[in-house]
Amino acid sequence: MSSSFGTLFKVTTFGESHCPAVGAIVDGVPPRMTLTEADIQVQLDRRRPGQNKLGTDRDEADQVKLLSGVEFGKTLGSPIGLMVANKDQRPGDYGSMSQIPRPSHADYTYRAKYGTHASSGGGRSSARETIGRVAAGAIAEKFLLEEYGIEIVSWVSSVGAVDATGVDMETLTRQQVDGCDVRCPDAVAAEQMTAEILAAREAKDSVGGVLSCVCRNVPAGWGEPAFDRLEALMAHAMLSLPASKGFEIGSGFAGARQRGSVHNDPFVMKNGRLGTETNRSGGVQGGISNGEPVYFRVAFKPPATIGQEQQTVDFDGNPAVLAAKGRHDPCVVARAVPIVETMAALVLADLALIQRMRA
Amino acid sequence: MSSSFGTLFKVTTFGESHCPAVGAIVDGVPPRMTLTEADIQVQLDRRRPGQNKLGTDRDEADQVKLLSGVEFGKTLGSPIGLMVANKDQRPGDYGSMSQIPRPSHADYTYRAKYGTHASSGGGRSSARETIGRVAAGAIAEKFLLEEYGIEIVSWVSSVGAVDATGVDMETLTRQQVDGCDVRCPDAVAAEQMTAEILAAREAKDSVGGVLSCVCRNVPAGWGEPAFDRLEALMAHAMLSLPASKGFEIGSGFAGARQRGSVHNDPFVMKNGRLGTETNRSGGVQGGISNGEPVYFRVAFKPPATIGQEQQTVDFDGNPAVLAAKGRHDPCVVARAVPIVETMAALVLADLALIQRMRA
Amino acid sequence: MSSSFGTLFKVTTFGESHCPAVGAIVDGVPPRMTLTEADIQVQLDRRRPGQNKLGTDRDEADQVKLLSGVEFGKTLGSPIGLMVANKDQRPGDYGSMSQIPRPSHADYTYRAKYGTHASSGGGRSSARETIGRVAAGAIAEKFLLEEYGIEIVSWVSSVGAVDATGVDMETLTRQQVDGCDVRCPDAVAAEQMTAEILAAREAKDSVGGVLSCVCRNVPAGWGEPAFDRLEALMAHAMLSLPASKGFEIGSGFAGARQRGSVHNDPFVMKNGRLGTETNRSGGVQGGISNGEPVYFRVAFKPPATIGQEQQTVDFDGNPAVLAAKGRHDPCVVARAVPIVETMAALVLADLALIQRMRA
Amino acid sequence: MSSSFGTLFKVTTFGESHCPAVGAIVDGVPPRMTLTEADIQVQLDRRRPGQNKLGTDRDEADQVKLLSGVEFGKTLGSPIGLMVANKDQRPGDYGSMSQIPRPSHADYTYRAKYGTHASSGGGRSSARETIGRVAAGAIAEKFLLEEYGIEIVSWVSSVGAVDATGVDMETLTRQQVDGCDVRCPDAVAAEQMTAEILAAREAKDSVGGVLSCVCRNVPAGWGEPAFDRLEALMAHAMLSLPASKGFEIGSGFAGARQRGSVHNDPFVMKNGRLGTETNRSGGVQGGISNGEPVYFRVAFKPPATIGQEQQTVDFDGNPAVLAAKGRHDPCVVARAVPIVETMAALVLADLALIQRMRA
Repeated sequence: MSSSFGTLFKVTTFGESHCPAVGAIVDGVPPRMTLTEADIQVQLDRRRPGQNKLGTDRDEADQVKLLSGVEFGKTLGSPIGLMVANKDQRPGDYGSMSQIPRPSHADYTYRAKYGTHASSGGGRSSARETIGRVAAGAIAEKFLLEEYGIEIVSWVSSVGAVDATGVDMETLTRQQVDGCDVRCPDAVAAEQMTAEILAAREAKDSVGGVLSCVCRNVPAGWGEPAFDRLEALMAHAMLSLPASKGFEIGSGFAGARQRGSVHNDPFVMKNGRLGTETNRSGGVQGGISNGEPVYFRVAFKPPATIGQEQQTVDFDGNPAVLAAKGRHDPCVVARAVPIVETMAALVLADLALIQRMRA
Repeated sequence: MSSSFGTLFKVTTFGESHCPAVGAIVDGVPPRMTLTEADIQVQLDRRRPGQNKLGTDRDEADQVKLLSGVEFGKTLGSPIGLMVANKDQRPGDYGSMSQIPRPSHADYTYRAKYGTHASSGGGRSSARETIGRVAAGAIAEKFLLEEYGIEIVSWVSSVGAVDATGVDMETLTRQQVDGCDVRCPDAVAAEQMTAEILAAREAKDSVGGVLSCVCRNVPAGWGEPAFDRLEALMAHAMLSLPASKGFEIGSGFAGARQRGSVHNDPFVMKNGRLGTETNRSGGVQGGISNGEPVYFRVAFKPPATIGQEQQTVDFDGNPAVLAAKGRHDPCVVARAVPIVETMAALVLADLALIQRMRA
Repeated sequence: MSSSFGTLFKVTTFGESHCPAVGAIVDGVPPRMTLTEADIQVQLDRRRPGQNKLGTDRDEADQVKLLSGVEFGKTLGSPIGLMVANKDQRPGDYGSMSQIPRPSHADYTYRAKYGTHASSGGGRSSARETIGRVAAGAIAEKFLLEEYGIEIVSWVSSVGAVDATGVDMETLTRQQVDGCDVRCPDAVAAEQMTAEILAAREAKDSVGGVLSCVCRNVPAGWGEPAFDRLEALMAHAMLSLPASKGFEIGSGFAGARQRGSVHNDPFVMKNGRLGTETNRSGGVQGGISNGEPVYFRVAFKPPATIGQEQQTVDFDGNPAVLAAKGRHDPCVVARAVPIVETMAALVLADLALIQRMRA
Repeated sequence: MSSSFGTLFKVTTFGESHCPAVGAIVDGVPPRMTLTEADIQVQLDRRRPGQNKLGTDRDEADQVKLLSGVEFGKTLGSPIGLMVANKDQRPGDYGSMSQIPRPSHADYTYRAKYGTHASSGGGRSSARETIGRVAAGAIAEKFLLEEYGIEIVSWVSSVGAVDATGVDMETLTRQQVDGCDVRCPDAVAAEQMTAEILAAREAKDSVGGVLSCVCRNVPAGWGEPAFDRLEALMAHAMLSLPASKGFEIGSGFAGARQRGSVHNDPFVMKNGRLGTETNRSGGVQGGISNGEPVYFRVAFKPPATIGQEQQTVDFDGNPAVLAAKGRHDPCVVARAVPIVETMAALVLADLALIQRMRA
């Protein structure tokens, strides 16, 4: 169901944009792992808006509080409850918009689904829902790193028409990614991306982009054949993010244009075990990890909230003009970096625990 | 878990490439629906190999048998067991390959996962596993059509570098799609695609492609916010198919290059209800259907099995040369058409039943 | 998994005995339902210890706080996060016991399972975990009452060897049940039960008991054949409560001693619909509700924590004597009344939503 | 959902009383386990009706056929499809009854639920549905025995008012249980039970009974706290069986009448590990196995189908008299023995795999 993700390592989230708190319950976290709020805060800080000149001005210091499942800095094996209080609880804040469903927003579909809608902002479809996920993902990442040495790094690989090139995903670090506000490790492209975002802001417009992500040191054998292939769960995870429109693993859509003789990854010996010479498969064959880096890309549409006037109709069908007040993120991909990493970590942590059943 | 898909309308499949039978249990099928084996056979016949000059030569007449859940041509509401006997039960048939893991196949990863592997073919990763899905999907489609008027049509939109253009997804029918072997409704592109496939076969090679799919008449309100957004479940479904490498809904990756002012879909009145003027959203906003056609694309890599010699290593790391014997499908996308439709139907049928909880 | 219950109306809980807070996420609550913290507080107050002279002295005012899913007193359809802060956060409080696993407690088994254990009290096996359940159950009850007129009433039907008689479950109200501290509506038995509990306390001992529960106005047709029969889910729910040892529905174990000609419930006309003359079935036939009252009984063992000295061994196997310090509940069944009602409500709310898929 | 049981070791069943076949898909079976149809047939033969003079006359040789998941006598790790053809496919066979819902049968509730009902017999509520379970359970048992040395033995502990005594559950074997038709290892009681069953048959009546079951060598640490306690899953499993009305573990309902000082199980050293002197807990503390034998009892009502005339009403409410034609089982508990073992095995196999995630 909607608010839970995972089978053994399972996260359940709660929270809308302007309710008292957002948070999560994380079930299946292995016992005896060291864990503090600081471990989680790192990623929350990375997803926070208002960090730099490219984002919104709202400075929401999202402080996580651990409610259960940890004692004396160690996990107990019981579910971890955690929450982040909303400082900004103003239901009705966007009330003026409420008779006009915002184009490409969830206002209309929520009303169709529930016969009601949170008065403010995006309700449950708001990016604030991802706070619970990111907190859970930070725990998953810690587990994966400590138990398996898995490193997950995401970066911005395109903004609008600007593409990053020359990124070495074998060695890329989060520090490098965070080296600039736009979170693109290709310095030249980063500069162009920044210009593109500022231009969009200037035009009271928004711009989309693509995130890439690599997961290194995933052991061979993870992923369940048929419906729960590693790439299927990863696609599910990524398309569950607000504003995402596409997912591709390994060669992706470009691979569909190739011949098999070019696309296949021949086996070679690598450090005493079987590896592949190339990695068009993206680290997965038959839905199961093969020991090579798992990498994929996620497309995000331009944010739907723009300052420009839009011709549309209200809920009754009467012509209306809409222009968002205040300042809005012209581009969300930089902030999405820790969120993509989080979802990748949740998928892998769950598959790790499931594969243990065959130990 | 791996072998089940769905929450209320739930399919569980069984079967490898050369075992006695493949099949499925379909749970949650509404009672009192008319259903016969012929309703299911239609889609099984469409997915069958050996239908035309472009595929393999094996003529496997996959005859479905209903085992339970139906009486006097009506569903009972109890789980529907169904199976298709394998005529071709030859475990060990591909034995000669067994010491050399086939590049970009699942041989290596299955062994890493299970410590064993079906002696023949792809085992559970084989396309034969999709038979149970397609049979289940045919039931889902019937339910969706009869209860909601939903029409699902998939077609081949690219093969290799050849792209179809000018397809009108508002009116496209399966009959039109099946008008040529390559299942591309753009006659000019279809001819080029056919040439491309035959050229690949001639070169003992294979070629990838992309499928498009449209689901018309999906009511507004389907899809669960957060983790089970309509597009997340659809991406999960599509990436669970053998050889798939990417998924995009609506504007997809191209949308990530656009500005919000261009990308947004303004609302308009349509036939007395709110609709959108454009449909870059692909029929989904905030993870919930908005009443517009749901459409998406799925990338399939070129088949890994090719007749050309490939330099690789065996399980022990010794250099080896592999060249598939016999004849193999140089391109699978035409056969994947009913499989993509099936998975779309399974997603929608499940969301339909879940949304009823809010009736 | 462990911390979630239900398919569509789904509750996930968190919290141990002495962590910062306990709580739950309740998913699947229908939208547009009126709901306030007061609606939930009623049942939390009924489960609270220290309410009367029979319980422990700890007065923990468990104040629920709604964190999400409700706006302006109405549910949104999104998950409801809720929590109760623990006033008494003293990890290590029971430290003196920690080298000696308490007989018939979870100390030993938790350590066997997790390789660790919350330093204090029962950890996750503590009755405090049920707070999240009761809060969730109060929401489920409100839904069932408002949508279907369902009334759920539990009462204490035995304490030690004392059995209540003459309770009319067709008309019994919670007000009547709460008429005395022991929550037994048979005044004569209630007096004997009270004496039994005080005698046990005097002897630094504890005593077990049985709860009965009736659910009136459950519509015919709820419950899923095969694995998720109404009584199977109810048994699951009840045996998931701390200290429960048995469950029986309708005639239960006594019915196993009867002949079919005596046990069968013949059909009769009742208020214009088919009903049964007797109700040995307990409102369920073939796992599905038949419109008659659903009633069942749950056995609770005597609390394991007693003031008397017990000969046992410590974790290393050395002989040890254990005697609980402080005051402990000699009998928990009165407090279990709202908890049993809660679990019944969770089962029924979930089955209600599932049955809607067949609407 | 209804037709599946388990999280990792998961069985999904299909089949009604008179459809072409009944069967199951068993997912999560560990790879590389030896498995043949004969391993499964043993338990199917034990559940088969018509084995002796106490049951019905129908001799249905239920031959299992493995359809997938096994190759060369070894499991592959993929889902195991299996089926048993129904020799007796006579939909409509019991047609004469069809206008009169049989008292204490599922005829009425199925119609209320589905608006339809299998024309014959009990449909999905029929005991034939348990065939798929028993086949799956035989696989679970083999896994539990080979991996952990777990032995599961069930026996008839009462029929009507006759109770078995003196059964040593530490040593009891299935061979001993099968020593007499009534499957009660207490020879004196067995004789009285047989007389009771024959008397019931003579009177065109039926009689209920109780099954006991012990699971030996279950390691400490199995069972998930909160909702999925070992006893909760076991109760769920047992109450999902046709005709079951009650479940108790360890001291059960009798324990509810005791004092804590009597009921507690003090720890002692046993074979170099901590054990308990007594076992009123039934091998479970805090929902988790403690290494002692897990034992429980299940109450079964007398079969609803009896030859005596019963005064009832038809679906329209008109008075009617019903008397079952043909011969019917006067007592089902002997046949239920392998079914109870099966459900216990399914619960334990699933908990075993889940606990591995903490390895």
